[in-house]
Amino acid sequence: MQRYFAKETINMEYNLPKEMYKHAVKVMRMTEGDKFELVDDQGRVFLMEIISIKNNEAVAQKTEEITKNVELPINVTIACGISKGDKAEFIVQKATEMGVKKIIFFNGDYSVAKWDDKRQKKKIERLTKVAQSASEQSHRNIIPEIIYSSKLSNIDLEEYDTRVVAYEESAKKGEKSTLYQVLNNNVRDLIAIFGPEGGISPSEIEMLEQNDFKLAGLGPRIMRAETAPLYLLASISFAKELS
Amino acid sequence: MQRYFAKETINMEYNLPKEMYKHAVKVMRMTEGDKFELVDDQGRVFLMEIISIKNNEAVAQKTEEITKNVELPINVTIACGISKGDKAEFIVQKATEMGVKKIIFFNGDYSVAKWDDKRQKKKIERLTKVAQSASEQSHRNIIPEIIYSSKLSNIDLEEYDTRVVAYEESAKKGEKSTLYQVLNNNVRDLIAIFGPEGGISPSEIEMLEQNDFKLAGLGPRIMRAETAPLYLLASISFAKELS
Repeated sequence: MQRYFAKETINMEYNLPKEMYKHAVKVMRMTEGDKFELVDDQGRVFLMEIISIKNNEAVAQKTEEITKNVELPINVTIACGISKGDKAEFIVQKATEMGVKKIIFFNGDYSVAKWDDKRQKKKIERLTKVAQSASEQSHRNIIPEIIYSSKLSNIDLEEYDTRVVAYEESAKKGEKSTLYQVLNNNVRDLIAIFGPEGGISPSEIEMLEQNDFKLAGLGPRIMRAETAPLYLLASISFAKELS
Repeated sequence: MQRYFAKETINMEYNLPKEMYKHAVKVMRMTEGDKFELVDDQGRVFLMEIISIKNNEAVAQKTEEITKNVELPINVTIACGISKGDKAEFIVQKATEMGVKKIIFFNGDYSVAKWDDKRQKKKIERLTKVAQSASEQSHRNIIPEIIYSSKLSNIDLEEYDTRVVAYEESAKKGEKSTLYQVLNNNVRDLIAIFGPEGGISPSEIEMLEQNDFKLAGLGPRIMRAETAPLYLLASISFAKELS
């Protein structure tokens, strides 16, 4: 069933905002009596029924609350070095399907394509839309937040009790126990850092180690910059949601 | 370091074939004394040094064998229903990075875009190139085999001791122990089936169940057709390669 996200708390009746109206009525061709799922600003989900469509406006009515929660049991933030091309869109779409809570894009020391202040605004706006549409499609209870950081050291780390960095050099040396150990602990808020295509610089690694980051290998194969975050998220789901 | 795949057994000296010559000398601008890795037809890897370049030909010489093996400890085949667009290329590239052994594309009952005999030849040829280039990049010991099957029931299942199908209906019902149980067993050759965008048909599921397939959920979120295989491969690596 189609799922949408509302920016507000849902009362008994809900006037579909313009974008939602367009998608529901013009694209999905919903008519009176059709149902959809609506997530409110608190992450609560309601089954809604369209009760009237007229004059380019549609009104829906709450029919019941859907209590199913599909969020990962730990809050996962991924911070990815900015890479070339449309890799950021790819990361946002796939990581959203896999349950990420927040995605930070930062200009890495080795980023070939950097975002300046002007560019980042457009990028984040576009990526937020990608996150919303992927959240609708994968029936998330929240839309992941997409954030820009001009550099790695500017990321606010305070909220994270668990900090890992996916480091190719560790993987090359056969490091294979850190991720397991980390996920065996009681984790509430995890941040994982992924370098851009060029990797993470020695001074970035030094800074991360000073901030209690653990260097983790993600298996013996070399993954592209945009693939590694998906490996991590799938592993977290496997370790924490399956049994 | 650049890695290439040879179609034959490597003797002491190796004449780079045309495509490899073009990439190594024209694109990567290698010169005499430069080194690269070469995988032979047995999956053995050698460090090679270019000893001469003349008349559009390059000769390299074995310097040592690299014994590192980065293959998954179990042979994983994924069979994916054919979807629209360039999803097949995406699956091949990413699944190769994540260690897949073989990928089968089949026309599912619910496939919107089907491949006929003529189309499949071109597709498989193209996808084999994608697999080769991803194998070079992720430093695999083998290039995954890419195969076409006109329909799901035509896939030869004999070689697989372990058979799972990623089934959305199972995931919806909260099924979350099958994948764990499967990977706890002694698995040698695993095949996992993934539907096309439209999902797997009831008669396909029936056929699979009759052939000892287990219905597995891959977590509570709805993943796109091209994302689910990556979840599976990452989970297998996490369960079997990390500790």
